[in-house]
Amino acid sequence: MPLYAAIADEIQDRIRLGRYTPGQKIPSIRSMAVEFGCNKLTVQKAFERLKRHGYLENIVGSGSYVRFSEKIGDAHPLYDFKTAYVSEAFFPYIQARDIFTDLFDREKSRALAPTPVAGDPDLLRVLGAHYRVPTKRMLIISGAQQGLDLTAKVFSANISEASLFEDPTYPGAISLFRPKHFVSLDGDGPDLGALDRSLTRRIKLFYTMPTVHNPTGIAYSLEKKESIARRAEKAPFYIVEDDYLSEYQDRPIPRFVDMIPQKTIYIKSLSPTTVPDIRLGFMVVPDGLYDKFLYAKYTSDIVSTGLLQKFVKAFIQSGGYDDYIHDIRDRIGRRKERLLGLLGACKDLVVPEPQQGYSLWVESRRSLDLAHVPWTPGEEFSFSPQYRSWFRIAFMNMDDAAFDKGLDHLRSLFARGSRPPKAG
Amino acid sequence: MPLYAAIADEIQDRIRLGRYTPGQKIPSIRSMAVEFGCNKLTVQKAFERLKRHGYLENIVGSGSYVRFSEKIGDAHPLYDFKTAYVSEAFFPYIQARDIFTDLFDREKSRALAPTPVAGDPDLLRVLGAHYRVPTKRMLIISGAQQGLDLTAKVFSANISEASLFEDPTYPGAISLFRPKHFVSLDGDGPDLGALDRSLTRRIKLFYTMPTVHNPTGIAYSLEKKESIARRAEKAPFYIVEDDYLSEYQDRPIPRFVDMIPQKTIYIKSLSPTTVPDIRLGFMVVPDGLYDKFLYAKYTSDIVSTGLLQKFVKAFIQSGGYDDYIHDIRDRIGRRKERLLGLLGACKDLVVPEPQQGYSLWVESRRSLDLAHVPWTPGEEFSFSPQYRSWFRIAFMNMDDAAFDKGLDHLRSLFARGSRPPKAG
Repeated sequence: MPLYAAIADEIQDRIRLGRYTPGQKIPSIRSMAVEFGCNKLTVQKAFERLKRHGYLENIVGSGSYVRFSEKIGDAHPLYDFKTAYVSEAFFPYIQARDIFTDLFDREKSRALAPTPVAGDPDLLRVLGAHYRVPTKRMLIISGAQQGLDLTAKVFSANISEASLFEDPTYPGAISLFRPKHFVSLDGDGPDLGALDRSLTRRIKLFYTMPTVHNPTGIAYSLEKKESIARRAEKAPFYIVEDDYLSEYQDRPIPRFVDMIPQKTIYIKSLSPTTVPDIRLGFMVVPDGLYDKFLYAKYTSDIVSTGLLQKFVKAFIQSGGYDDYIHDIRDRIGRRKERLLGLLGACKDLVVPEPQQGYSLWVESRRSLDLAHVPWTPGEEFSFSPQYRSWFRIAFMNMDDAAFDKGLDHLRSLFARGSRPPKAG
Repeated sequence: MPLYAAIADEIQDRIRLGRYTPGQKIPSIRSMAVEFGCNKLTVQKAFERLKRHGYLENIVGSGSYVRFSEKIGDAHPLYDFKTAYVSEAFFPYIQARDIFTDLFDREKSRALAPTPVAGDPDLLRVLGAHYRVPTKRMLIISGAQQGLDLTAKVFSANISEASLFEDPTYPGAISLFRPKHFVSLDGDGPDLGALDRSLTRRIKLFYTMPTVHNPTGIAYSLEKKESIARRAEKAPFYIVEDDYLSEYQDRPIPRFVDMIPQKTIYIKSLSPTTVPDIRLGFMVVPDGLYDKFLYAKYTSDIVSTGLLQKFVKAFIQSGGYDDYIHDIRDRIGRRKERLLGLLGACKDLVVPEPQQGYSLWVESRRSLDLAHVPWTPGEEFSFSPQYRSWFRIAFMNMDDAAFDKGLDHLRSLFARGSRPPKAG
């Protein structure tokens, strides 16, 4: 192996092991040349190889940085414990059909009439009542990801330096914000000491999933929420509250949007409670930011399709929405029990409890030597080396038949990993 | 009036008259103080007033700049000649209802199955055949505005300086790109001399609506397109081809995406050929940019709702799409004739011909002294003072009854404007 390739491998290892993390500036060519005892041209060749392979990127006039990966989570393995969605197989599609038919019969071509940028006024009203949030600071978005995208647009200046994220966190938010600051999580929310240390920086946004955290499944305690709200009251940062799966949590507690609405950007996806294909959600933002968010929405895609908004409104009003949530909550409970039983029987796996939502965050105390895994590895949620031995098993994206076989598949994978291969 | 207010008024006038344009840095406080013969504190007070009222903005460490307006075109006057959409009243909603019903009956819950980020493979295939574009570099987007938004994301670095726009142009694109460079248009496309002068700058994107230009209604000639394609072949810029309303143009000619696909980012809205509420469109991008666009789409809103994609696919396959386009083309022809007759009878109005599409770009040779106008004033499409006397009349967003009354309303507005008020 030529020297430049060996140096490239070493740098790649340091990235893999988290010594250099995405967004971080790596040492200069000059200092690397000193470290490796070679000339600068060799280091430059190594850097160029790493750029070609997407590990590094140049920022003109500044230096070389570790790149954020640009990966799309679109793989669908046979037994899919990766995708954190509820299978559309459970959705009452006959009711969906009837709602659409009825919409056209009743409203005729008006079913397809233009909708205001902020959203269908009837849907805003219905959601405001259902979720106990003020309608006048709400807007309908094309899913929670768009809520994050609009936030990234409104706070565009220097957002990477100005954002504080949980560690681990949702990869779709990392892709947008490319955050440089993270706070570690205990079982009831962030470590407050670490939070305070982070807040000495010029943080403008704290992105959090306090209700059902993805991927850890923890819920923030009321005490932690109150401490964070007190900090937000005094400090110049907003809380971006991604209210993920609150409908499926065990015991609801007050949200940030209830406690400190003037400093909370609240984002709610409607996909987990309707169907993943319906790309809708809503936001509630502080008064002073509302116009900026509305404008960001308008320049992004004008408005979210009104026909789908009318569908969701009718679905909620019919009672079908609550029935569906109830049904899915039961299914989550039954599947989680079976999965916890299976994982509990594998002696090298640790599953912290309690966990909310429809995935489980699992630590493996030994390395599983498997070429393909049907779950999501921990490194997709974190740049910290400590999470390399963790993974997330999402368990609602298969229908019942696939889930049954999927459990057998998991059992055999863990069994294969646990016994060292013996002759015969 | 205090001196600082008079200075603020003067600067506001200069912005209104196009002496200072959006994105432009205005002279420093020091030099303005010299110009107005006052102290710097007075000028600073004027600047602060203009910032409060949204005319100026500060860029830290650089100075004061004219702000881009953040206006949402969401007003719906009684007789709406502003909105450049086709009224949903013309859409075959019964066929729409039947397509949705059939989708659920045939595909059951799979009608709501997740869709790949790039779009429903069947819709991509059907669109590829219908629009004669390669499927493998296509992606489905949530409307043309999202196509522009993704382009702005992919070319984010320094986009304002690196974009060249037509003058006048579509305001929704100005909002996103905040371009600083413009090229004026003749009846058959841009002035090539002006284009060449602009291209000496570091232009990376040339945004154009060459088929049916908004707002002027011109179509580029084949010769102009060929000259521009030859320039794009050698220079480092991409053509962003917004293929607006080609279905309703008189005589189709080759598109940039046909002539120079490796340098063309092609954007096609499907709203004008289905219904404005259906927020769908597609893009065809050069090979080397495809992954970047796909990733930008994923981080923006994951994917456009698959159910709507299936609807459009079925609508095209049923033949309903072509029938609808045929019907709207006839309606456009009849309305345009009536409107041209009306405008031709007003002696101070000039309507350049021919104009494609479903709006007319009109010059008024005298100032119309009207408090409220039902059309879109020229300054929304241009920062150039010469277009202050122009306006765009879009004529397909009303149903037939409203359009008839709308014509009467226009007639009375122009009549009121033309005669100086006399006693009695």
